[in-house]
Amino acid sequence: MSSDSRIITLTTDFGTQDYYVSAMKAVILGIIPEARLIDVSNDIPPQDIMAGAWVLRNAAFLFPKGTVHLAVVDPGVGTARRPLVVEIDGQYFVGPDNGLFSLLAEKEYRAFEITNTDYLRTNPSNTFHGRDIFAPTAAHLLSGVPIEAFGKQIPELISYRWAAPINDQEGIQGMVLHIDHYGNLISNIPAEYIQEVEDRGRFKIYVGSAIMNSLSRTFADVPDGEPAAIIGSSGMLEVIINKGNASEMLSVQKGASISVVSQK
Amino acid sequence: MSSDSRIITLTTDFGTQDYYVSAMKAVILGIIPEARLIDVSNDIPPQDIMAGAWVLRNAAFLFPKGTVHLAVVDPGVGTARRPLVVEIDGQYFVGPDNGLFSLLAEKEYRAFEITNTDYLRTNPSNTFHGRDIFAPTAAHLLSGVPIEAFGKQIPELISYRWAAPINDQEGIQGMVLHIDHYGNLISNIPAEYIQEVEDRGRFKIYVGSAIMNSLSRTFADVPDGEPAAIIGSSGMLEVIINKGNASEMLSVQKGASISVVSQK
Amino acid sequence: MSSDSRIITLTTDFGTQDYYVSAMKAVILGIIPEARLIDVSNDIPPQDIMAGAWVLRNAAFLFPKGTVHLAVVDPGVGTARRPLVVEIDGQYFVGPDNGLFSLLAEKEYRAFEITNTDYLRTNPSNTFHGRDIFAPTAAHLLSGVPIEAFGKQIPELISYRWAAPINDQEGIQGMVLHIDHYGNLISNIPAEYIQEVEDRGRFKIYVGSAIMNSLSRTFADVPDGEPAAIIGSSGMLEVIINKGNASEMLSVQKGASISVVSQK
Repeated sequence: MSSDSRIITLTTDFGTQDYYVSAMKAVILGIIPEARLIDVSNDIPPQDIMAGAWVLRNAAFLFPKGTVHLAVVDPGVGTARRPLVVEIDGQYFVGPDNGLFSLLAEKEYRAFEITNTDYLRTNPSNTFHGRDIFAPTAAHLLSGVPIEAFGKQIPELISYRWAAPINDQEGIQGMVLHIDHYGNLISNIPAEYIQEVEDRGRFKIYVGSAIMNSLSRTFADVPDGEPAAIIGSSGMLEVIINKGNASEMLSVQKGASISVVSQK
Repeated sequence: MSSDSRIITLTTDFGTQDYYVSAMKAVILGIIPEARLIDVSNDIPPQDIMAGAWVLRNAAFLFPKGTVHLAVVDPGVGTARRPLVVEIDGQYFVGPDNGLFSLLAEKEYRAFEITNTDYLRTNPSNTFHGRDIFAPTAAHLLSGVPIEAFGKQIPELISYRWAAPINDQEGIQGMVLHIDHYGNLISNIPAEYIQEVEDRGRFKIYVGSAIMNSLSRTFADVPDGEPAAIIGSSGMLEVIINKGNASEMLSVQKGASISVVSQK
Repeated sequence: MSSDSRIITLTTDFGTQDYYVSAMKAVILGIIPEARLIDVSNDIPPQDIMAGAWVLRNAAFLFPKGTVHLAVVDPGVGTARRPLVVEIDGQYFVGPDNGLFSLLAEKEYRAFEITNTDYLRTNPSNTFHGRDIFAPTAAHLLSGVPIEAFGKQIPELISYRWAAPINDQEGIQGMVLHIDHYGNLISNIPAEYIQEVEDRGRFKIYVGSAIMNSLSRTFADVPDGEPAAIIGSSGMLEVIINKGNASEMLSVQKGASISVVSQK
């Protein structure tokens, strides 16, 4: 693997009150003391695989090639779901095969089921594979063990249901897939779809109690407290309220529908 | 001390909104720039010494030998409670003598009261010993100052009251000592006690509104939404709800009683 | 710049659930892999510039000289507010010119508007200057690019309104400028002002439902559950409740008035 990264990132739903995250870091540092540990997020909502997948999709490929991304949102720990190592575009991912990597796997990937016990903690528990299986795997991978050594290659990852937006001549019917820390509503509608609608002429965007007649280019275009539609930093349509919390002020929750309707 | 660790861990109730944690890190890096700083948790509930002790017990000994664990849950800051450096099984601990280390001290230990002011910040405040006393002590310890240099050895740590479970032929009477991020109920009943009850035959486990007739081995054994008793990753009896929050769904708080009763 | 620090600190209102903080860290590590990344706080309340300024004031100057402080609380992202690099007393600051640095700028400073696009990500977004402008600037600054290279020097930073306490022969009229994680009420009244009142004789301190007749020196002076006035670790008058939450128990919010009144 690339030697220009000594980085292991962590993406978990472990929270920060317990010893769970630090247990994984301790195990890693015991194997490869020079590892650089970077938290992506340990505050993924408990067992929300879709939220973990969204964060990984936006963060992982910004890191230097050769980075190992340890990702544990694992409601099925101890069941038959497969533990994995995956390589995608020079980045490495270690975690459960439950859909957590499905937003990454639009690119070409090589996936291996972790079956070789040589690189695991002895007597792994049934309830904390993060500490006993995934952390030591990530550490050994970073220290140079080739990905093929962890187990047998598998043809396909489990793919999580992710509602694709409906896109036709009438417009786009999508959903709110994430509400961020500011209350911004992030949709599953990519910028390219919006471009197609714009090319056909006037349109309106509906979400909750808000109606918008156009896309704003910057926050500077939006009066304080007014809802606005923008293309956000993740490349998706977002509805925001300038200096306000759109989720609260528009009473919109994750999963709500959002429509872009072409005007005659 | 062992030179194979450059790690200082942090366990505090300082939270993450204020400058308190970073003030300690800044002081450490000013003394030993190559220190590796690993947060165990800075979200211990305010002044909850027992919660801090629990996290330390489960995280500390996973780290490489020679690691320095800086632990500050210190409701008595500025009072007569002693500032300490403790060595246990090749790990070092720095913090107040208020019970924070009592779950560690089942092993043999050497404890020293910090009385030598050479290694402290000048004019330490009365309210922030983390920054002015404990952080510089941890940094100097990591940089090679011998533990004996910080002050005089003391024979015994203050031991915090920790309710031990009652274990007899009828069964076990214990308590919930921690509720984790997922709402799992972690008891003070160790796996060995449960083993003794199992060896005698059938039993039931009672906590809140839940009754369980057996121990589950993995989450795979438990239907979603059903309570189950397992031996958790900390080696204690836990009651969990698969893909649910046991504390909320069973209305069980920290301190609640939990019973394991042998059946005739 | 000083070569004795490889540190970049982060102070943001990004929260810890999203990928925003890690996106900045990824960009930095892509430019300068050996950077040491220290979170000051990523839990500044959303868009609360004053809270960010307070945290920076108390943390920044504890770090080794040459540290780069990346600070992004930026409600005006994408508007005409200037992106800045500032040097104050051997420390470097990167972030928006919106008042975030005004509590630091009591010392002499040199400030530069970031106008040179050589050091930015190509095609910066309008909504995430943290990732596209400030993080790469911080990284290049740490890697040795001189501060003058980023743009033209500007004479003055924008200064945020910070209510100064009124101080006369009757006493001091101030406000609560921060409530910390423990519920301690931190005022805008510096220790020197209190000293002047003490020198004149007896006084009382009023805040919410509490009245105090003196300043306590340590927590040891204060019975549990009683409110007390102390000079806190930031050098300001604080009202605390020993082993309790003063904000909750006295019903005092940020912005409340606090008075120190000389007695005849």
